[in-house]
Amino acid sequence: MKASYMEDTLNKVSEFKFSVGVQVRFSETDMFGHLNNTVTFTYFEFARIEYLKSLGLMTNWQQEEVQNILVVADLQCDYLKQVFFDEKLEIYVRTARIGTSSIDLHYLAKNEKDEPVFTGRGTVVQINRHSGKGAAWTEDEKQLLHGK
Amino acid sequence: MKASYMEDTLNKVSEFKFSVGVQVRFSETDMFGHLNNTVTFTYFEFARIEYLKSLGLMTNWQQEEVQNILVVADLQCDYLKQVFFDEKLEIYVRTARIGTSSIDLHYLAKNEKDEPVFTGRGTVVQINRHSGKGAAWTEDEKQLLHGK
Amino acid sequence: MKASYMEDTLNKVSEFKFSVGVQVRFSETDMFGHLNNTVTFTYFEFARIEYLKSLGLMTNWQQEEVQNILVVADLQCDYLKQVFFDEKLEIYVRTARIGTSSIDLHYLAKNEKDEPVFTGRGTVVQINRHSGKGAAWTEDEKQLLHGK
Amino acid sequence: MKASYMEDTLNKVSEFKFSVGVQVRFSETDMFGHLNNTVTFTYFEFARIEYLKSLGLMTNWQQEEVQNILVVADLQCDYLKQVFFDEKLEIYVRTARIGTSSIDLHYLAKNEKDEPVFTGRGTVVQINRHSGKGAAWTEDEKQLLHGK
Repeated sequence: MKASYMEDTLNKVSEFKFSVGVQVRFSETDMFGHLNNTVTFTYFEFARIEYLKSLGLMTNWQQEEVQNILVVADLQCDYLKQVFFDEKLEIYVRTARIGTSSIDLHYLAKNEKDEPVFTGRGTVVQINRHSGKGAAWTEDEKQLLHGK
Repeated sequence: MKASYMEDTLNKVSEFKFSVGVQVRFSETDMFGHLNNTVTFTYFEFARIEYLKSLGLMTNWQQEEVQNILVVADLQCDYLKQVFFDEKLEIYVRTARIGTSSIDLHYLAKNEKDEPVFTGRGTVVQINRHSGKGAAWTEDEKQLLHGK
Repeated sequence: MKASYMEDTLNKVSEFKFSVGVQVRFSETDMFGHLNNTVTFTYFEFARIEYLKSLGLMTNWQQEEVQNILVVADLQCDYLKQVFFDEKLEIYVRTARIGTSSIDLHYLAKNEKDEPVFTGRGTVVQINRHSGKGAAWTEDEKQLLHGK
Repeated sequence: MKASYMEDTLNKVSEFKFSVGVQVRFSETDMFGHLNNTVTFTYFEFARIEYLKSLGLMTNWQQEEVQNILVVADLQCDYLKQVFFDEKLEIYVRTARIGTSSIDLHYLAKNEKDEPVFTGRGTVVQINRHSGKGAAWTEDEKQLLHGK
């Protein structure tokens, strides 16, 4: 499973159509002088939300009346190259699989030399806020997800 | 103002009757090899909440029906000594002043050699959740605050 | 791969012999009211280092003359149950596989009701600080790793 | 002291000539739904370093041979208005006072409506890396600091 996601991510770079930029903050480094391992997930979260916003999903998720919310089922990161203070990274996101009420997102981070520095994946599930059960994507939502 | 709080904090160490322990995490260090400056405020927050819980305040603040909540008006930290990975610190808190609807809290962090490593202060205000206005302490609450 | 690690982690709970406690800080929650997803990796890091220290590994890793250091190759977390502010969690760690110069660590977090709330895994590699190449475990180190 | 810095910061907005933008991340909110209080210091740190880089200071501070480094002596933040997820803030920095080997920096954060949401201040001291003692600014450095 891991192998196939990594292959996908690194071999199909051209399939990533969305990305956001981040700049490594001093507070995000650790005493080894690198970006701390735990911070990559913060970047994935930022990129994921921007990506979902760009698709037109999550436009009203902060409102009280919203029935369905998106929750993270799992997260994974593979570290390929050290990242240092002040580097500017581009974090790419794409939908690798659309399930009934879930999506698998793939992530790829590249440095200014266009080198992959870390990759990631994770499943996001749409659930009903009240029942906690999976809420199937509508056809409209599937269209949005197929877009990018 | 700063001068007087520092004097207070360092000269009246015996007036601190409450403390909590924290251990510096690897992710809390930065590339200079020290505890990152921004993390001390996380420790203050942790200590502050434990302190207020110990007083019997904030026992029900997470419930919907709660009228009054506590908000932080300002925060300050003075760095006295470098703190390193894995050090165990004791974070002391005390109420230095009780106002009509606010309190000034003082903080002191000591390392395992009992040396002060940083101090802090900050005002916390009780406000009405709906009006956003200051909500005066009851006599009972003042009693609790005088306790420590 | 994921399936097998999850099975392992949840079915072989009794094989976890090491754990550390953490308490969810207010600053570690997010606007959904839960422990933010990115913080579980901070807990894993804290537990991993305490675990390695408990084995007698990493006793001198902060010193200049150290030849070999441990680096994280990948990290994964599966979220089973929501975790809230102030909960006390126990984070379990064990070595699930010993390679030539790497180990696979499994993680399990339980709440105060002894329910699993999230699990994780990740490979740690010992590399030579100067060459950046994998550095094989000594027989002594393998013994230490077999201990827990 | 506090009073005068606040006055300075809010009344002399036009004296701020440098700023950086930040966008509030989901992981930076807390269960109250706001930007967590501790994160403002992370923004100050990011803005401070960008500011010092823009002045031409700290251009070589990551190199081994550097004699003098800048350390934070104290930090302060006053919270004026709640800040929410996804807001774009502009963080302004300026040098309010130049001492022999230190500077006082003032910070001001504004939201997209151009409203001040929090202010801050803090002293940064240049010390000799080896002796730990204050290292006086050169005339060239003072010129750079007067620039903005």
